[in-house]
Amino acid sequence: MTNGPGISRTPLPQGFKVSGVNSGVRRYRPDYGLIVSDRDAVGVGVFTLNECKAAPITYCMSLLPSKHVRAIVTNSGQANAATGALGRDNNFRMASQVSKQLGCLPHQILTASTGVIGKQLEIEKLEAAVPELCEHLSDFAEPFSLAILTTDLVPKTVSTEVKLSGGSVRITGICKGSGMIHPNMATMLGYLLTDAKLELGVADQLLKQANDKSFNMISVDGDTSTNDCAFLLANGASGVGLANDDDYKLFKDALEAVSQVLAQSIARDGEGANKLIEVTIQGVSDVATARKAARGITVSPLIKTAIHGEDPNWGRILARLGAEGIPAHELEKMSLTLQGHKLFDNGAPIDFEKINVRTSLRSDTIQIVIDLKQGKESVTAWGCDLSKKYVEINTDYN
Amino acid sequence: MTNGPGISRTPLPQGFKVSGVNSGVRRYRPDYGLIVSDRDAVGVGVFTLNECKAAPITYCMSLLPSKHVRAIVTNSGQANAATGALGRDNNFRMASQVSKQLGCLPHQILTASTGVIGKQLEIEKLEAAVPELCEHLSDFAEPFSLAILTTDLVPKTVSTEVKLSGGSVRITGICKGSGMIHPNMATMLGYLLTDAKLELGVADQLLKQANDKSFNMISVDGDTSTNDCAFLLANGASGVGLANDDDYKLFKDALEAVSQVLAQSIARDGEGANKLIEVTIQGVSDVATARKAARGITVSPLIKTAIHGEDPNWGRILARLGAEGIPAHELEKMSLTLQGHKLFDNGAPIDFEKINVRTSLRSDTIQIVIDLKQGKESVTAWGCDLSKKYVEINTDYN
Repeated sequence: MTNGPGISRTPLPQGFKVSGVNSGVRRYRPDYGLIVSDRDAVGVGVFTLNECKAAPITYCMSLLPSKHVRAIVTNSGQANAATGALGRDNNFRMASQVSKQLGCLPHQILTASTGVIGKQLEIEKLEAAVPELCEHLSDFAEPFSLAILTTDLVPKTVSTEVKLSGGSVRITGICKGSGMIHPNMATMLGYLLTDAKLELGVADQLLKQANDKSFNMISVDGDTSTNDCAFLLANGASGVGLANDDDYKLFKDALEAVSQVLAQSIARDGEGANKLIEVTIQGVSDVATARKAARGITVSPLIKTAIHGEDPNWGRILARLGAEGIPAHELEKMSLTLQGHKLFDNGAPIDFEKINVRTSLRSDTIQIVIDLKQGKESVTAWGCDLSKKYVEINTDYN
Repeated sequence: MTNGPGISRTPLPQGFKVSGVNSGVRRYRPDYGLIVSDRDAVGVGVFTLNECKAAPITYCMSLLPSKHVRAIVTNSGQANAATGALGRDNNFRMASQVSKQLGCLPHQILTASTGVIGKQLEIEKLEAAVPELCEHLSDFAEPFSLAILTTDLVPKTVSTEVKLSGGSVRITGICKGSGMIHPNMATMLGYLLTDAKLELGVADQLLKQANDKSFNMISVDGDTSTNDCAFLLANGASGVGLANDDDYKLFKDALEAVSQVLAQSIARDGEGANKLIEVTIQGVSDVATARKAARGITVSPLIKTAIHGEDPNWGRILARLGAEGIPAHELEKMSLTLQGHKLFDNGAPIDFEKINVRTSLRSDTIQIVIDLKQGKESVTAWGCDLSKKYVEINTDYN
């Protein structure tokens, strides 16, 4: 697998092209991006559970799942987070302008939007940029991945080839997200593209499974945006489908791996963050509670600041597990391992050389492993440390 | 009502005395406190819901409710947060040492503990301090209120007199809490004392009601401690009881008011905080969801940093309401008022003079009022802003 950040060119699956232009909404940076498939693609999506859903979200929810998706258009810098009629109109104009240029129907075009909220979209600027957007198409993911960034420090792309029984297919993932966006809300956008031939129901199931083990397990701040969404488009351009259970398993694992690399890259790029925190709870019998607890650890300011300070503060982790509902009798049996050092087991702290553990915490990736010793399941969540820089970004944004 | 902070002497109800001494666990500050009633008191408590419960919590839970409470002893600086046998032994030694000195039974003595965790209690130091602790007793709350502080910047006491049909009774409240305690966990301790004659069941109900509208509605960081508890002791020394419904109502309101003053003082003294944030959701039909949403606003880093930056960022508040499950159709009707300025109503932002609203946000108390226009209930939660100082306190504590 090729991890995008630091690598200049990320290949797209067959039949896909992308572009990114500056529409003038932002001053210099590309702010308008397009993903196009040269044929109808199966499209499925997962969307924010926030009751306050932005216009692009309600629009895409009404269209998906679909067998006729041709493109996804996304603007950044100024979010269409509106819920009223004007927000819906502007969103539909985004789709229909692109559909005219591509020669298809508006409802074949998906939309997403991220950036500052509080004003209506400058739709005229976006409209004027559509011809350029549809003309300069690239075989690599970068132009699109750059056009959708807001406070992100790095573009986030990844691509992998999967060898199935009928031949090879490619999965390419692109996303953005940095915790919170300029003044108003966080947005996480994910795009998974493949040239595999997938049936609609299978695609839907695969995206939900991958999402539950990746994007749904990251947190920078615990705030759920109104514009979050992740898409999977499968255009079948490779001519290769999932012929048997082995193919399904190979493709599922690859899609999950791509999603996890993207998810981790978002957590690592969290506003003001220096460290990626990976929390694994294993030996689990109650998966729902374990997921909640793992995510609870990644949002705890107590734990995030301790890790920022590179201190092996197992007490804060234990307290959070209890607060999230891990039962007392499990807490008394569990073990807690930080960067490979076991700090707590069977209800009692283990003497450790603090200097060794502190040294291991200088790493930019921090691994917390909790073993509940109850069952065979395991869950993993990702987050980041909490720094003064984070407070600065979200206090002084005007 | 006399609000404690800034006022040097807070009267205790009849029959109660307190003390506070330095046991040597902390270097200079008083670290061991005692509340004594000269007769058996009705005692009730509410305790942390964290599954990981410290030894003093499980001990007090096993004793309360009780009609025979004589004292509460509390140490600070080093928390007995242990859950094992040694933690339970040390806790019992705290209670039995005091009981011997007071000439009563160990199970008439309640215990609480707050401070650094990770080591066992230095019980010998505490033991040696018991004679002094039981000898120098004060009629004012201050010696105890100072002995229980950890990272708090101000002691927190309040006292009020309630005129009932049979005469006057006094309620005095003392608490501590500042969000997170030195290296390991937050602790909120609350003590409500009264000389009213209360039946056990009534006392229990009154404490639970007051707690639900005060301590249970504050948050500094969203982390639930293993040592949280609040007690109500009623020793009947005034000879006055709750003779009728009016008396009950008067007493209930006074107890609630005392609890709210204490709760607010904790939120205002949150680590690194400059501002108290008061969130009221009115026009509520679904109280449980509204409570969750109000608390969600007070824990949101997005909202806490915006208020720290004195920016009227209504979008972050709206997004959090949606994330907490306030239904979309209610969000489309609701109004949002910040410091008296209405910023959002009926699904649309209201044009406002940003400079006026920003000026009003310079206050040290920020009021957010959301009207859902659905029902007659209302809920209030308290929190504080999030500053770089907070990150510093919880990063560099070693």
